[in-house]
Amino acid sequence: MKETASISFAHRMEGVPRSFIREILKVAISPEVISFAGGLPNKKLFPLEELQASAVKLMSGSDRNILQYANTEGYLPLREKIAERYAHKGLQINPQNILITNGSQQGLDLLGKIFINEGDALVMEEPGYLGAIQAFSIFHPRFVTVPLTDEGIDVDCFRQAIANENPCLAYLIPNFQNPSGISYTEERRKEVARISKGKPLFLVEDDPYGDIRFQGERKNSFYHYLPEQTILLGTFSKTVVPAFRMGWIVAPDAVMDRLIVAKQAADLHTDYFTQRLVYQYLSDYDIDWHIAQICEAYGRQAGAMMQAIEHYFPKEIQYTHPEGGMFLWLTLPEGRNAMELFDLAIKENVAFVPGNPFYIDKAEVNTCRLNFSCSDEMEIEEGIRRLSGVLATLG
Amino acid sequence: MKETASISFAHRMEGVPRSFIREILKVAISPEVISFAGGLPNKKLFPLEELQASAVKLMSGSDRNILQYANTEGYLPLREKIAERYAHKGLQINPQNILITNGSQQGLDLLGKIFINEGDALVMEEPGYLGAIQAFSIFHPRFVTVPLTDEGIDVDCFRQAIANENPCLAYLIPNFQNPSGISYTEERRKEVARISKGKPLFLVEDDPYGDIRFQGERKNSFYHYLPEQTILLGTFSKTVVPAFRMGWIVAPDAVMDRLIVAKQAADLHTDYFTQRLVYQYLSDYDIDWHIAQICEAYGRQAGAMMQAIEHYFPKEIQYTHPEGGMFLWLTLPEGRNAMELFDLAIKENVAFVPGNPFYIDKAEVNTCRLNFSCSDEMEIEEGIRRLSGVLATLG
Repeated sequence: MKETASISFAHRMEGVPRSFIREILKVAISPEVISFAGGLPNKKLFPLEELQASAVKLMSGSDRNILQYANTEGYLPLREKIAERYAHKGLQINPQNILITNGSQQGLDLLGKIFINEGDALVMEEPGYLGAIQAFSIFHPRFVTVPLTDEGIDVDCFRQAIANENPCLAYLIPNFQNPSGISYTEERRKEVARISKGKPLFLVEDDPYGDIRFQGERKNSFYHYLPEQTILLGTFSKTVVPAFRMGWIVAPDAVMDRLIVAKQAADLHTDYFTQRLVYQYLSDYDIDWHIAQICEAYGRQAGAMMQAIEHYFPKEIQYTHPEGGMFLWLTLPEGRNAMELFDLAIKENVAFVPGNPFYIDKAEVNTCRLNFSCSDEMEIEEGIRRLSGVLATLG
Repeated sequence: MKETASISFAHRMEGVPRSFIREILKVAISPEVISFAGGLPNKKLFPLEELQASAVKLMSGSDRNILQYANTEGYLPLREKIAERYAHKGLQINPQNILITNGSQQGLDLLGKIFINEGDALVMEEPGYLGAIQAFSIFHPRFVTVPLTDEGIDVDCFRQAIANENPCLAYLIPNFQNPSGISYTEERRKEVARISKGKPLFLVEDDPYGDIRFQGERKNSFYHYLPEQTILLGTFSKTVVPAFRMGWIVAPDAVMDRLIVAKQAADLHTDYFTQRLVYQYLSDYDIDWHIAQICEAYGRQAGAMMQAIEHYFPKEIQYTHPEGGMFLWLTLPEGRNAMELFDLAIKENVAFVPGNPFYIDKAEVNTCRLNFSCSDEMEIEEGIRRLSGVLATLG
């Protein structure tokens, strides 16, 4: 297609990072490569047969409205199911405060739209979720990064950030964070809520992995401690299937009002047929039984990865010990370059994501994200063994 | 849910119109009301059985990737099918220049994101499509409205707008426009392309109804005359079903690059399962046969509406003569108020949309949108008869 000479684009697209991971995945696509680079749920665990039965049942009824335009908020019985699931975790959520979105990613776009003026401060964990960095970047916030410790976000830095920078949002993943796999301790959650209380700030709690816990006890949501200032993001991508792009936001009334206007302008509503399909599946099958299968598999795979790291890697390499989710985080000795390790590793047919895209403003980092959801235990052991060889070369 | 005291929202949400039609539809929901207010395709014509068979076939295969995350651009074979359909209309489109979106509404959001800086001029037809006004409003453009005539956009005003206002986009619906039902003549299309050629401007041609032609000859797309400056928006909402939110944008390479970044940040990709389902349906069934059924039904209904108007309405009321699509536009005598007519009409159990939301800055208008896709011929005659009684009362 020919190009016109003088296209002028909006400023907002300047500086929005392209997906680095997308580029990485192109390299990692060869079948000889053992890839810890992806961020996909394991497709072997998708409930394909159950979804097929649900689709047949749904489409055998006489309700042709399953294929019609629908309301912006989402299918009410589905929102009621989501509220029920929160109730089992001790959170009282009114279904009217739930908006169905295209994955939780769209929640980030809508929140960026309704909250962020250019230059507004926004707290991000460091390292932080790449998709959130991308979504928010479009609205040109001032990112205020707060480091993660093994117990969650660094409390002193968080307190300072709130006091000095007046952020409108703090974007946090307290359970099995992407990319680090770290979970906030109960005390850390309380402390974050305590610091935030009464400030003109919302805690945006993104929780795509919360249900995928294979070890330890469930911790409380920020919503438990500070409901009036917490916005929850959720998704069926990791518990049912990702293809559906079925997620949701929970927000207070005044925020919901704006979110609905923004959602309507963005795409009217989320795929209504798929909303009905997910509802049918949740009605006819025991999703908790299904989630238990996922936890069992990912738990074994995470265990195999940690065991192999313990066995093969030199002691100076640190790694997180995830209790759930899909990722583990390596920290190489000071001064080592993760990109260099990646280039060597790919030659030995093993891939991971160098930490770079998870930082806002760092060119050289010594950290790496390893995914364990998509490889079996033998592949994991072999991949870590290969990586240990590369680490030895790197010196 | 309790509210926090001091929520401060982004400026961009100020002045974004709420859906007026949404409010109208709440009034029109009672079963005694004959409603010409909606904008829905007729659900009796949805290919439910065919889609069920397609879903069963799709899910009986062994490809579990139909439920996995997918690429941002969309399923390539589906984009190839869309390109094929353009080829039948004489337009050579590379599938790589097609991005799958959540209905064409999302195309508007993405175009607003990548093109509109605050205060940038944007040409809109007057009356114009409400959903586009909403989507673009978020990015605070300066709307430059150009009136529609029976032959399409007013050429002299369009030429002036381009010369004086330097717009980055002109948003146009040349076929069976929403709300007016007007189609641009071939000469008017050529003229618009001629005026735009070489200017730093894209024509955004939204064509949700183009295939639903029940009378007259197909006209050429702006893309035929000015491919390098035309962006096409398309959708399966009116030809297959709306619930799927399955649309697309066709754009030149440089624009596609930005659209992909914006789409990825917005929601990663459109529901991949539904993309595969639509592809399966298009592969196994003759969509042109199906579209012919829709055209036949809507054509009969539009005919019934025009005939009833001719028979019942006073001569001073003007109306458009749509050759396709779903809408017809009434113009009351000068000085009459469409909102007043609406209030009286609803008491007589007949509803329509007063023209107001289709103008950017007009409080009182004498125009009305009537939908004919969702009522049968008897309902249409009875609805128009009731409306004629109300018109007599209005004086």
